[in-house]
Amino acid sequence: MKKLTWGMIGGGEGSQIGPAHRLGALADGNFTLTAGALDADGPRGKAYAERLGVAPDRAYGDWREMLAGERDRPDKLDLVTVATPNATHFEITKAFLNAGFNVLCEKPMTMTVEEGEEIVRIAEASGRICAVNYCYSAYPMVREMRAMVHRGDLGAIRTVVTNFSHGHHAAGDDADNPRVRWRYDPAMAGVSGQMADCGIHALHLASFITGDEVRTLSADFASTVPSRVLEDDAMVNFRMEGGTVGRLWSSTIAIGRMHGLDIQVFGELGGIRWASEQPNQVYYTRLNGRTEIIEKGEAGLTSEAQRLSRVAIAHPEGFPLAVANIYVDLAARIRGEASGDLPLAVDGLRSMAAVHAAVQSAGQNGAWVDARPPSLR
Amino acid sequence: MKKLTWGMIGGGEGSQIGPAHRLGALADGNFTLTAGALDADGPRGKAYAERLGVAPDRAYGDWREMLAGERDRPDKLDLVTVATPNATHFEITKAFLNAGFNVLCEKPMTMTVEEGEEIVRIAEASGRICAVNYCYSAYPMVREMRAMVHRGDLGAIRTVVTNFSHGHHAAGDDADNPRVRWRYDPAMAGVSGQMADCGIHALHLASFITGDEVRTLSADFASTVPSRVLEDDAMVNFRMEGGTVGRLWSSTIAIGRMHGLDIQVFGELGGIRWASEQPNQVYYTRLNGRTEIIEKGEAGLTSEAQRLSRVAIAHPEGFPLAVANIYVDLAARIRGEASGDLPLAVDGLRSMAAVHAAVQSAGQNGAWVDARPPSLR
Amino acid sequence: MKKLTWGMIGGGEGSQIGPAHRLGALADGNFTLTAGALDADGPRGKAYAERLGVAPDRAYGDWREMLAGERDRPDKLDLVTVATPNATHFEITKAFLNAGFNVLCEKPMTMTVEEGEEIVRIAEASGRICAVNYCYSAYPMVREMRAMVHRGDLGAIRTVVTNFSHGHHAAGDDADNPRVRWRYDPAMAGVSGQMADCGIHALHLASFITGDEVRTLSADFASTVPSRVLEDDAMVNFRMEGGTVGRLWSSTIAIGRMHGLDIQVFGELGGIRWASEQPNQVYYTRLNGRTEIIEKGEAGLTSEAQRLSRVAIAHPEGFPLAVANIYVDLAARIRGEASGDLPLAVDGLRSMAAVHAAVQSAGQNGAWVDARPPSLR
Amino acid sequence: MKKLTWGMIGGGEGSQIGPAHRLGALADGNFTLTAGALDADGPRGKAYAERLGVAPDRAYGDWREMLAGERDRPDKLDLVTVATPNATHFEITKAFLNAGFNVLCEKPMTMTVEEGEEIVRIAEASGRICAVNYCYSAYPMVREMRAMVHRGDLGAIRTVVTNFSHGHHAAGDDADNPRVRWRYDPAMAGVSGQMADCGIHALHLASFITGDEVRTLSADFASTVPSRVLEDDAMVNFRMEGGTVGRLWSSTIAIGRMHGLDIQVFGELGGIRWASEQPNQVYYTRLNGRTEIIEKGEAGLTSEAQRLSRVAIAHPEGFPLAVANIYVDLAARIRGEASGDLPLAVDGLRSMAAVHAAVQSAGQNGAWVDARPPSLR
Repeated sequence: MKKLTWGMIGGGEGSQIGPAHRLGALADGNFTLTAGALDADGPRGKAYAERLGVAPDRAYGDWREMLAGERDRPDKLDLVTVATPNATHFEITKAFLNAGFNVLCEKPMTMTVEEGEEIVRIAEASGRICAVNYCYSAYPMVREMRAMVHRGDLGAIRTVVTNFSHGHHAAGDDADNPRVRWRYDPAMAGVSGQMADCGIHALHLASFITGDEVRTLSADFASTVPSRVLEDDAMVNFRMEGGTVGRLWSSTIAIGRMHGLDIQVFGELGGIRWASEQPNQVYYTRLNGRTEIIEKGEAGLTSEAQRLSRVAIAHPEGFPLAVANIYVDLAARIRGEASGDLPLAVDGLRSMAAVHAAVQSAGQNGAWVDARPPSLR
Repeated sequence: MKKLTWGMIGGGEGSQIGPAHRLGALADGNFTLTAGALDADGPRGKAYAERLGVAPDRAYGDWREMLAGERDRPDKLDLVTVATPNATHFEITKAFLNAGFNVLCEKPMTMTVEEGEEIVRIAEASGRICAVNYCYSAYPMVREMRAMVHRGDLGAIRTVVTNFSHGHHAAGDDADNPRVRWRYDPAMAGVSGQMADCGIHALHLASFITGDEVRTLSADFASTVPSRVLEDDAMVNFRMEGGTVGRLWSSTIAIGRMHGLDIQVFGELGGIRWASEQPNQVYYTRLNGRTEIIEKGEAGLTSEAQRLSRVAIAHPEGFPLAVANIYVDLAARIRGEASGDLPLAVDGLRSMAAVHAAVQSAGQNGAWVDARPPSLR
Repeated sequence: MKKLTWGMIGGGEGSQIGPAHRLGALADGNFTLTAGALDADGPRGKAYAERLGVAPDRAYGDWREMLAGERDRPDKLDLVTVATPNATHFEITKAFLNAGFNVLCEKPMTMTVEEGEEIVRIAEASGRICAVNYCYSAYPMVREMRAMVHRGDLGAIRTVVTNFSHGHHAAGDDADNPRVRWRYDPAMAGVSGQMADCGIHALHLASFITGDEVRTLSADFASTVPSRVLEDDAMVNFRMEGGTVGRLWSSTIAIGRMHGLDIQVFGELGGIRWASEQPNQVYYTRLNGRTEIIEKGEAGLTSEAQRLSRVAIAHPEGFPLAVANIYVDLAARIRGEASGDLPLAVDGLRSMAAVHAAVQSAGQNGAWVDARPPSLR
Repeated sequence: MKKLTWGMIGGGEGSQIGPAHRLGALADGNFTLTAGALDADGPRGKAYAERLGVAPDRAYGDWREMLAGERDRPDKLDLVTVATPNATHFEITKAFLNAGFNVLCEKPMTMTVEEGEEIVRIAEASGRICAVNYCYSAYPMVREMRAMVHRGDLGAIRTVVTNFSHGHHAAGDDADNPRVRWRYDPAMAGVSGQMADCGIHALHLASFITGDEVRTLSADFASTVPSRVLEDDAMVNFRMEGGTVGRLWSSTIAIGRMHGLDIQVFGELGGIRWASEQPNQVYYTRLNGRTEIIEKGEAGLTSEAQRLSRVAIAHPEGFPLAVANIYVDLAARIRGEASGDLPLAVDGLRSMAAVHAAVQSAGQNGAWVDARPPSLR
């Protein structure tokens, strides 16, 4: 099986997300890091790319240079990952899609709904893949939950409750801490703080697992650290297209929650719950039944959950391999093989619409507003 | 130490709450069951009371008969517990307070805010104790959390997140199941379903632990089982007097949640969490610190937590002894000894105001409304 | 239902075990504390008994006085609890049995196997109840596990693994700490330290749940705190009459284990596990199946588990009510009603034989020895 | 950083261990799969190797062919992994070491103690690396525990308790199940069943974390499925060189234990526990203190734990990346950089000595025997 060629933009030395993407792309042997513009500091990025094995002529100083260098090569890159600062995702993704590349974009895909609509249109027109790194959806047990709901194990879904809360911004020392400060500064983070950063992962999971989409929502935002302009604690109530009731809490000041992404789905016939800190189990309770622990790797899981698991039952697999599963599915799709349900541009667009709707609602004392992008109403 | 005399109204054979009260009153040897009107079926109630050791002349056919028989006795009962159907709490509590008895009333104390205001006035005028059975507040570790907040361990409180959700009404077979049906029928349950039944426990805990009160709220109610008039899934956002942000989710269709009362409190300096299904531990995380497990019975807890714990560390104590702790504190107060922070009529009133506010808000698409009783604004 | 009369020997003010017995006897309204010799300090014990409501003429200065005062009364006590220091259990239990009382004896019932044999003979001859307070066997879910094994849910039992370990004696400050020191001093504790103190609870559970008895064993004892003569860390391998393999670890220096009594039972068709710190759940896995969480109070449990549970599903019940369940069953047996499987003198005897066998084996480098009392070989 | 070249023997299509090694070697970009003899079926193995990107002239039909083809190449492989059936490990490892290759050998390294001694001698003489895949020791939090003990956080270690039990061989259908049957057949598995398969992982962890070695042991083996010759349930008591007491239980019939490798270490000043199914946390209790949860990725961990963790706190990392950490350390050592404490041939030798000692002891009714290899006594 020929290796696919892969380029990365951003994710330079010392970045948090870079190693996860490199491991994700390399782990299963599908991709080779072939080109890169890894750092805002051009020479530094080129040097790092070369240390990672990129040929000098394909190590670039910035994304425009990379685009120019790569767009017309006969051995065109099979995939480009965009892992740059949020505000640049739109422009870069758009440029590479337009140039005919498959793109995996970090979240948030764009800063505005309009940009999101544009990416969706371009992706469609280009016929290329435009995926968004909602990597939690690629955990084997998340795929299993989606399959359970789809199969009807839970009956019609009544309520979904999801959280993505942590306490890593609780110190309130934003003035001295630029890594935290920008998250709450509209000039850098856009219209939303925690909802745009973490809440959208939870919201995507809710849609992914239930196979339904958010239609309307009502939000309550708080900046519990007074210096913050954007919210650090958010509650969003929502209704999905099929009538499901949704509850989403997301916070950055929840001291003691480490990486508190979890979800519970309650239907007429059963309930399930899953937490990202213990991602290899699903707790499943049938109506009038006992709670059962479904283990990643157990006999009888869907082929989807089996395909995305690499080691036997109760050998835990974690976050980096969830990212790797995104690359597994991208490789399959690029090769024209069957793949699972990749998060795509339309999901990035829906997230952006929901974030903007939440901001609008929170600004109107929790008024219920349409959470859908205009093109999908 | 002379035993105190105790009478019970309601809690007859086969009731759920009766055994908890009897055990609560008897367990520590403070009370003797001396009089009772235990059942709507008078003869049945008298026979049961006698089997429980009540003298025949103090076993009554109904509460009015009991009031008449007991009000002028020189050996007046030290305490009367009201554990009858919800709609009767107000009338009976009022009558016994007016007749000079100390009363422990089951929740909800009343059906309306006005009734709640009246009970508070009567209790005050009578000089008698009027307690409400918010028994979760009497767990040793809940008292410890209150003390931690009061002592400033968590700094100013930013956010409190509490849930009281279960799945025991998920079958949706209300038509065939009268024990469930009445909860969602305004004619029997009043203005609210799950919020009035369980949500108020969570709300009381939020106030009890933070030492603060709910000021405003916004609610989203859903009847996920279509035949239901009243809500079976409720989300309430609130703000407390001191500015704390509150989130409360309460549901009866959450299959897999067994008795899901839990609470998380996040302050400037730390966070704590506690769940009623594992009530002997508090998870405590200091800002920038590790999560620590505080165990009931460990060295160094407050005298309050020590006083309400009967056995050594890691010997679990459960729900019936939380109820017993209410009786321990009632006995102390009746005897004029120091006691802990008993939930009183004013707490019952605040709950009723919050429930009615939530109903109002939910009916106005989540508009923010004042959650306080008129007399406490 | 007439209350039963109850006398207690030991369990005076400040004792650890006294409150558990009083709550156990009183909680369900079956017993009245009618007589007592509560303290080695006679006047102190009498004064305390009177404060607890005992009539002055039935508050005694010591057990011999109590025996003399109570043995020929026409209103003879229905039950006497022996909660004195270990070395006195034999003498007092023997005396009260001989005088025709029902006795509940704290563990260990005796210090030697011979004494144990004698108690069994006397109990048999007297026709009275002689129970031993292996209270963990009275948890509803422990009774449920016994029923599951008996019913064949697990098939033939292959292996049972049980632990009773804690870290409360880890400081090693025995010289300054008399409450710890005596446990490791043969002059006061007899032949064994932790095995006799805690290990026998675990061993009793193994027998109780499997319905089988220990036949042979091999022990490895260590005194990890060098000043100790008796063991503070013990491992016992055993074989039961039916061939089941047993593993028991018991320690007092296991820092971080709070009250670490747990048990796992593995059969041909399934496995179960239970821990005393979370006593309301059993984890049950069928062969080739998922792990299911059995909840105390769920529909379909045995009548035994239902009878010994006082509140609904997921309302936790703890240690004091396990002790109370012993009294519930004693009351039933005294009244001639059906009761559950009470731990009796024969169980106390078997424990003592196992402890002495373990001491013998440990002294012989782990040689396998017969663990049964001579009369039961 | 130049990629290292890597060859694999065994681990062909459908094998369990192959994918873990490939992911381990590839994930961090250190190695390229350059040569391989992947399958006992030569043509199948060659075809698979080519599909994995191996050049046709370096895809071999068996290990001898590979040795012949690779031994004298100027671009000699940097590392060879031996992942063949157990009985062949010795011969292949020996041959490749002798030919001057660095080798990572799957466990068990050999079948006999003598073979183990020989590998140690050869490795020493060759100056090459001979590592053994005790991959659990490469979890970040296991390295952290080792550092904690080494630093004295726990004081002198008194007792270590470890288990490696599962229920995957509980069906007892060995006759129909060749994947299970061979484990209990001396002709294929050697002298020991579960102890040699899983117990040695637990034993290695005990040594690795405490920094001490097993000196003597006493074993109790059982074949709970009667048709089995070798043990499926084993208990080993041991003493380490420094006097630490050890307890190890290992079973394959423990239905409900999925992959039950865990360890508890108790010292004079504290205790720690860790379980492989939740590998990103260590529970740590200081003497007289509360239990604290140490999280992988938290601030202040040792550089060792930081180096081997790829993503932020509470982003779980699992088994495949523990294997990858072995390769990370191998790459560092091959490049002459600082690396962590790799499990080496001497550890493989010690395991084999302990297994043979346990077999001997179990055959002598648990007699205590020397567990050390002759060369290390």
